[in-house]
Amino acid sequence: PQSKLPALGTTIFTRMSALAQQHNAINLSQGFPDFDGPDYLKQRLAYHVSSGANQYAPMTGVAPLRAAIASKTQRLYDYLPDKDSEITVTAGATEALFAAIAALVRPGDEVICFDPSYDSYGPAIELAGGIIKRLTLQPPAFRVDWAAFSALLSPRTRLVILNTPHNPSATVWQADDYAALWQAIAGQEIYVLSDEVYEHICFAPQGHNSVLAHPALRERAVVVSSFGKTFHMTGWKVGYSVAPAAISAEIRKVHQYLTFAVNTPAQLALADMLDAEPQHYLTLPEFYRARRDHFVRSLASSRFKLLPCEGTYFLLADYSAISDLDDVSFCEWLTTDVGVAAIPLSVFCADAFPHKLIRLCFAKQQSTLDAAAERLCRL
Amino acid sequence: PQSKLPALGTTIFTRMSALAQQHNAINLSQGFPDFDGPDYLKQRLAYHVSSGANQYAPMTGVAPLRAAIASKTQRLYDYLPDKDSEITVTAGATEALFAAIAALVRPGDEVICFDPSYDSYGPAIELAGGIIKRLTLQPPAFRVDWAAFSALLSPRTRLVILNTPHNPSATVWQADDYAALWQAIAGQEIYVLSDEVYEHICFAPQGHNSVLAHPALRERAVVVSSFGKTFHMTGWKVGYSVAPAAISAEIRKVHQYLTFAVNTPAQLALADMLDAEPQHYLTLPEFYRARRDHFVRSLASSRFKLLPCEGTYFLLADYSAISDLDDVSFCEWLTTDVGVAAIPLSVFCADAFPHKLIRLCFAKQQSTLDAAAERLCRL
Ligand SMILES: CSCCC(=O)C(=O)O
Ligand SMILES: CSCCC(=O)C(=O)O
Repeated sequence: PQSKLPALGTTIFTRMSALAQQHNAINLSQGFPDFDGPDYLKQRLAYHVSSGANQYAPMTGVAPLRAAIASKTQRLYDYLPDKDSEITVTAGATEALFAAIAALVRPGDEVICFDPSYDSYGPAIELAGGIIKRLTLQPPAFRVDWAAFSALLSPRTRLVILNTPHNPSATVWQADDYAALWQAIAGQEIYVLSDEVYEHICFAPQGHNSVLAHPALRERAVVVSSFGKTFHMTGWKVGYSVAPAAISAEIRKVHQYLTFAVNTPAQLALADMLDAEPQHYLTLPEFYRARRDHFVRSLASSRFKLLPCEGTYFLLADYSAISDLDDVSFCEWLTTDVGVAAIPLSVFCADAFPHKLIRLCFAKQQSTLDAAAERLCRL
Repeated sequence: PQSKLPALGTTIFTRMSALAQQHNAINLSQGFPDFDGPDYLKQRLAYHVSSGANQYAPMTGVAPLRAAIASKTQRLYDYLPDKDSEITVTAGATEALFAAIAALVRPGDEVICFDPSYDSYGPAIELAGGIIKRLTLQPPAFRVDWAAFSALLSPRTRLVILNTPHNPSATVWQADDYAALWQAIAGQEIYVLSDEVYEHICFAPQGHNSVLAHPALRERAVVVSSFGKTFHMTGWKVGYSVAPAAISAEIRKVHQYLTFAVNTPAQLALADMLDAEPQHYLTLPEFYRARRDHFVRSLASSRFKLLPCEGTYFLLADYSAISDLDDVSFCEWLTTDVGVAAIPLSVFCADAFPHKLIRLCFAKQQSTLDAAAERLCRL
């Protein structure tokens, strides 16, 4: 059949993980931990499965999980969303992003994305018939030029997608970013989709700054998160969106025909986990900071130039002192010849991004990071 | 926000299950069993979770599950799909249906649906910008009028959606239906989406007739199924599509940005189950036939007129001897005043469907069916 997404191949994550496996390389490409989540969470899953909680969950998610998400949101961002009308559990954050875009973007609507950006936004916008307006942010700071942003606005602008802590740049949004965004879009019917899946992996001194903590923006925002990163279980695929009731109603119309409901025992186990250890996520910054700092130290003698990492479990490395290859070729070579798989930054950008930058995932055991660093320091 | 699906409310399944709960009614509305799946399957899930299989599955599904689906397809339909290029594991059949429609239907394309039809097809087509052409089938036989079908075809026809065994009519497609379909669409670039989630719950003497058993149609068909109905685990949300490589490639482009991957431990457990008991599904017709026949017998003294049930776990009942209410009002009254929840047939039809028919789910324990029958016989 004629393709509706002709420019698309297989995601870089699938391709690099496959190449890593084929060449037995240490896989620091696709973002997932090589360690497991909490025992209690796994025990609760086994419990719910064995006790027969195996039929359809409610379309919006099981009530105790939505309640736990609501309390967590209140504790962290000083806003208590209504669990019945504002929270929707989805098959991972990816489904929440897709459903929000499908619900809000009409054919011909314009959507502003900041590149580098996560690779699912673009195809979801294209399938909705939307037009993507991109603003490419430049390393090392990846800050938004708000004059350039305002120049992209038009009467057709419908949605702005932001992501903080940001994958892949590892930067975070700050109060002045939100102030500038609000100033630019106030008074227009423009929605905000905020991808905050790394909300609990933030090293910035001021912490994670969620859209949910901004009352004016919150009125027109969809915030997406998930449990995969928080509990080291990327394979469970339970995510959610928080949005005002009127927006959530539209997201649910899509969600109910997109997947209808999410794995029941996994939802119940996550609810138990959040209840038993409501502050688990507070341990994550330290947990990942230790890994990040160890990895940075072990790369100190390499010829990579490391960029600051304020959040996420990704570290950017500039290899211009090592090679003249473009970033895709360099990552291929690194995987096949050096035995370390990484992600090239340019794949997150639609426009030219001629920087010599790669993304390394440090959600790995110390021994994995040491083995990778050893290979990377040889270059 | 202005709605992209203005005509849509919450699905009838969510509404009726909620009403049933509120009024403490016996819930024969939404289609799910009130008994549990095989112990072995549940044990394998606990095993994979505890042994650390908790990170992202491959985007297309874990290899052993795709292999097991391929063997099952060969055994049943004499066709061995290539597990690497033709099978894609999805978050339930609902996601497979959505992804197939999103991949194949371009704005302005026409899609032929047979009403009554499952409620997710329409919104998925609308979101893709497609135009729905409906052919309403009439009870009790619900057979396709092939002259009327051919009259619906146009140069813009892109897709035909069929469903066998059929929810809600409980009828099945036979060889002459496929012959007529092929005669009508041969030589045109028209695809077929076949929803076969009840493939293993078929009571017709000739058995389930899958599109996969028809070589010419198979070349342009997407067949969707799931494990929820087969293993009594509707809450696990693991489904799949089988389609030729070129079509699967397009479906995967959508799937990878819609959910990316499906719950890993559930996939591995299902693969183990299919390996350990490759003929489990052969027990299902007898298992459900016994329930169907028992329920039919216990309703013999009622004033409902029951329609034949050739497949699925749904039974249609004509209540015209009992009430003049339209079917939606009758189902509401039945839930609130009689204490049995059912689904009105008209909600599966976009055009007028002035029949006095309700759908009763018999995937229930004998005691549940007996209690419901006792109430229904009082009318
Ligand atoms: C959905 S696979 C990609 C995982 C991820 O978030 C990343 O590596 O950026
Ligand atoms: C996805 S909830 C509906 C379950 C079902 O297939 C039905 O009741 O028809």
